[in-house]
Amino acid sequence: MRIARFSIDGNVAFGAVEGSTALGAEGELVLDIIKGIPFADFELSGTKVPLNKVRLLPPVLPNKVVAIGRNYAEHAAELGHEVPDAPITFFKPSTSVIGSGDPIAYPSFSQDLHHEAELAVVIGRMCREVPRERVKDVILGYTCANDVTARDVQQREKQWARAKGFDSSCPLGPWIETDLDPSDLTIQCTVNGEQRQLGRTSEMVRSIEDLIVHITEAMTLLPGDVILTGTPAGVGPLNVGDEVAVTIEGIGTLTNKVIKRG
Amino acid sequence: MRIARFSIDGNVAFGAVEGSTALGAEGELVLDIIKGIPFADFELSGTKVPLNKVRLLPPVLPNKVVAIGRNYAEHAAELGHEVPDAPITFFKPSTSVIGSGDPIAYPSFSQDLHHEAELAVVIGRMCREVPRERVKDVILGYTCANDVTARDVQQREKQWARAKGFDSSCPLGPWIETDLDPSDLTIQCTVNGEQRQLGRTSEMVRSIEDLIVHITEAMTLLPGDVILTGTPAGVGPLNVGDEVAVTIEGIGTLTNKVIKRG
Repeated sequence: MRIARFSIDGNVAFGAVEGSTALGAEGELVLDIIKGIPFADFELSGTKVPLNKVRLLPPVLPNKVVAIGRNYAEHAAELGHEVPDAPITFFKPSTSVIGSGDPIAYPSFSQDLHHEAELAVVIGRMCREVPRERVKDVILGYTCANDVTARDVQQREKQWARAKGFDSSCPLGPWIETDLDPSDLTIQCTVNGEQRQLGRTSEMVRSIEDLIVHITEAMTLLPGDVILTGTPAGVGPLNVGDEVAVTIEGIGTLTNKVIKRG
Repeated sequence: MRIARFSIDGNVAFGAVEGSTALGAEGELVLDIIKGIPFADFELSGTKVPLNKVRLLPPVLPNKVVAIGRNYAEHAAELGHEVPDAPITFFKPSTSVIGSGDPIAYPSFSQDLHHEAELAVVIGRMCREVPRERVKDVILGYTCANDVTARDVQQREKQWARAKGFDSSCPLGPWIETDLDPSDLTIQCTVNGEQRQLGRTSEMVRSIEDLIVHITEAMTLLPGDVILTGTPAGVGPLNVGDEVAVTIEGIGTLTNKVIKRG
């Protein structure tokens, strides 16, 4: 099932996406409004609205986003790094999250903004110290993410809270796919229609199981929390006016335009 | 005014702390229950409960905690570091926050847990790009914090999400003091009654104004968000069974016992 979060007439709701999700056919999609929230047992209401009549919101409002650095060997190499002995874990705050169609505001303190296309894992239930064999039980589904990074600030500042945590640095969407084997999916990033990143999730150094075991050894994850699983090679600059799109096989496309911060 | 958050008979409320707050006299304190929340105009209800009949909770449940590394020169030096050109900014997640009296659970993946006594700033209103002269308007008040750190993990892992973000790594409390000049206060940490850290907030490399300008250049702060302002020299190990106390002049004492993680 594909679960979107959206606003219509000032109300916020979750809905199941129905109809063809071929690229460019969003106008033909409808949302069957969910009674309740997708983090517990829920029913579809049967009340349907066309997707092109609503505003998509980030598919979850995470309490925290836990992100992983250098989880694709080729990307680590392109920035001149080795794959680290332990996964690099960092946070992006809830205030950095935007949805598909929302603008990325170019931060005033950077002159080198980069896109980083990533597979995002959405947590479905409160958990800590998750054993490897139970990881699938704590996952609600998957969405596309862009770990937008102020590369110059990242290189200048030892910890990445500002470089990767500024407002609008975490586009998520367009929706959550709950029925998906994430182990070998194409992940792609285009800027103004030109391909920049292309990889497969099978190239991850650490698997989703590894990452969730590693993270929950230290901290509790809450329903709606999000894990970003690292970016494949091909990261590069974003400029004001660019349209950046992250497409993951079996999920869909997350699209955002870069604007001047107002 | 001192604002505490507490639970009584299963209900959570904020209250104004009244009576003497001399050390050891907590039994004589009363809480005047607040109608509403302290992030907007509020009234005292006149209904009072003795402090020793309630369970203190973290005085806020922050959406995010933004913390600053190496903001006291002597502490940077004791760990063999220089004061960095730009403030080191990192996040501690909401799941790391506990209150005074709550246990710090020694993480399973560390053998070198350290205390770091810090002055915490509690944000009162949503803000971004705060000009220096408006910083005081976005602050609700101040509390004590312990930036509990798995020092061995911090040295091993490039980003500090696990080393400083594990469950119970962010004790905050006992309450928020709203009427306080934070510029030159004694800050002290004891372990089992023995003094370990002693400094003055006037020794901060960057002032609270500097830090809030720097942070909000990048990100929106929300009511209840917390800024940790760095720790003075004297950090050292915590062991299971230790009682660690952070005392800040004009605020009070935050006390936590270290337990084995269950």
